[in-house]
Amino acid sequence: MERCVGGDMHPSYRILMGPGPSNVHYRVYQAMSNPVIGYLDPQILACMDEIREMLRNVFQTKNQATLAISATGSSGMETSYVNFVEPGDVVVIGVNGFFADRMTQVAARCGANVIRVEEEWGKRIEPEKMIKALKEHPEARICGLVHGETSTGVRQPLEEIGAYCKRTDTLLVVDAVTTLGGYDVKVDEWGIDVCYGSSQKCLSVPPGLSPITVSSKAMDVLRSRTTKVQSFYLDLILLEKYWGEERVYHHTAPVSMFYAMREGLRIVFEEGLEARFRRHEMLGDRLKMELEGLGFKLFAQEGYRLSMLTSVVLPERVDDAKIRSRLLNEYNIEVGGGLGWLKGKIWRVGLMGEACRVRNIHCLMGALGEILS
Amino acid sequence: MERCVGGDMHPSYRILMGPGPSNVHYRVYQAMSNPVIGYLDPQILACMDEIREMLRNVFQTKNQATLAISATGSSGMETSYVNFVEPGDVVVIGVNGFFADRMTQVAARCGANVIRVEEEWGKRIEPEKMIKALKEHPEARICGLVHGETSTGVRQPLEEIGAYCKRTDTLLVVDAVTTLGGYDVKVDEWGIDVCYGSSQKCLSVPPGLSPITVSSKAMDVLRSRTTKVQSFYLDLILLEKYWGEERVYHHTAPVSMFYAMREGLRIVFEEGLEARFRRHEMLGDRLKMELEGLGFKLFAQEGYRLSMLTSVVLPERVDDAKIRSRLLNEYNIEVGGGLGWLKGKIWRVGLMGEACRVRNIHCLMGALGEILS
Repeated sequence: MERCVGGDMHPSYRILMGPGPSNVHYRVYQAMSNPVIGYLDPQILACMDEIREMLRNVFQTKNQATLAISATGSSGMETSYVNFVEPGDVVVIGVNGFFADRMTQVAARCGANVIRVEEEWGKRIEPEKMIKALKEHPEARICGLVHGETSTGVRQPLEEIGAYCKRTDTLLVVDAVTTLGGYDVKVDEWGIDVCYGSSQKCLSVPPGLSPITVSSKAMDVLRSRTTKVQSFYLDLILLEKYWGEERVYHHTAPVSMFYAMREGLRIVFEEGLEARFRRHEMLGDRLKMELEGLGFKLFAQEGYRLSMLTSVVLPERVDDAKIRSRLLNEYNIEVGGGLGWLKGKIWRVGLMGEACRVRNIHCLMGALGEILS
Repeated sequence: MERCVGGDMHPSYRILMGPGPSNVHYRVYQAMSNPVIGYLDPQILACMDEIREMLRNVFQTKNQATLAISATGSSGMETSYVNFVEPGDVVVIGVNGFFADRMTQVAARCGANVIRVEEEWGKRIEPEKMIKALKEHPEARICGLVHGETSTGVRQPLEEIGAYCKRTDTLLVVDAVTTLGGYDVKVDEWGIDVCYGSSQKCLSVPPGLSPITVSSKAMDVLRSRTTKVQSFYLDLILLEKYWGEERVYHHTAPVSMFYAMREGLRIVFEEGLEARFRRHEMLGDRLKMELEGLGFKLFAQEGYRLSMLTSVVLPERVDDAKIRSRLLNEYNIEVGGGLGWLKGKIWRVGLMGEACRVRNIHCLMGALGEILS
């Protein structure tokens, strides 16, 4: 029965231009090979304090409750709903893509009464439409939106909706999994109450952590719950007791991933947020132009296109699976296919974090030129 | 507002003799610095297949549904309850320590009606007592037990209870977070239906994954649920669709941790399970003898002491916080303090995986000899 499987593993060095993960800086790999230490070691607690401070900067917030969930981006979504929804609560969710739809599923599993504000995939949800739904449901506990919809490449404007929610008891929950670190996510200025991201996209850290920040308005709601949070692992009050000054054991922290996150964030701030956002914007525009030149059509609504993820409709002559597989196997380039009903119809081409480099655009265009010629 | 925090991080090289994490083999760090690839890349899918096969070996099971949850050991506990408990279900849990008590909290958050079978901390639960409670509650959906109670150093015998559960509709859920990879965990032979472990103890992989295996009896219960699993992230049917042949996207896999797990498991099987268990047994006995020689008293019940985690009552002259802090800061040795009401009263000294070496016993004894002389 017993046997050792396989030889040494030597994964290929891919250019990661899919929907994430993105390429990782060598300094981050080096940080991960630092020796593991205990979850209450003063050195790991200091590392966590530094992560918190840098995460506040990247979320552009002063929120005390800012930390990294010890699981991947999807757990950030789940954390946002299990903590703030009690059974029967109304939540209003803008649904214009795969991940927004997943939000409704996650909310429903918390016993929420979900009001869907539907929009065509590929379009942003008009703020007025969202606000109208919120006015019809003043009792709503949560207004949920996806800032960068990874399934469609659409960027959702948040300012107006945030300003509205600020004047009500409704909490604005925002999925910034794709945008965090690559585009402005102004948590405080826009009035976002709960915002979560991922390690593996524009922050260029391996997948495994989900940064999250929570406003004091939301923490008050959490503290006044009458029922227990249904997840022990994602209970923000318990997590905050570990990340905060009390240092109460909650779970064994994923130490190596913390090392990675700290180093990844340091690289972000060495470049500076503004410069980083500009780089994503400029190269995103460049990629869109080049793909249009090859006959791809841009899928997302003009004016609301993500810089770090470009969605394109495949020309007739491009066979989705075949060409993506050739890009991967012959050129070591990953691009993403469509999710849900968009499978086979669109590609999702990422330019995230370390992978957002002009040389990667050149590699992709060169490869596509050869394959499609 | 924006600033880069701290310089390069250089954590100390600790000898990890606490309750976990344990020390990590340099090959595992090397594996983690392999380049990140996409979550549907054929190379990561092959890696996951190899992890599955080796995990089946370490769990000593033929269960198809065997995988690693993308979060730390506590998430394995939560996965075991959210999937198999529906609101109102009776679960019978043997409670003789901190983690068994946590099981009751996790179960209660799933809406379970929890029956506690109490035992003094430091003692194993008598199988007859557990079986008596199960006979009184034939409707019980789950019987929950902790195989190696990390808070007390007690090993729970499972054979008789497993044999009983096999003849009923009750599922036996076992926490093997501490024992997996360091002691026999005979999932099939003992009749365990759901068994979870952790990456960071006797497997000597950094914290961040929780291996889990599920019997076909338990999968049938899962498929016949009338309500949705309350966690999307930990939904085993969705996870199995990603880990199994369908390869349906569920979340972005923590690729670097998968590399680490694969390499850690290979090292386990290069040594062989039997040899590894013997090493933990022999050195565990040695450590107990040496600590007794220094005036520490063994806390756990004779005959039911864990090999990989030794709990000792502090002699009068030993100041818990002061001595542990000197061990850490002057000798770079971590030992664990007591949890819950045992804080300040006992130590938990681990010998797990790579940290289970005679030289570590020598280091600890040398240091204690100097400090206490």
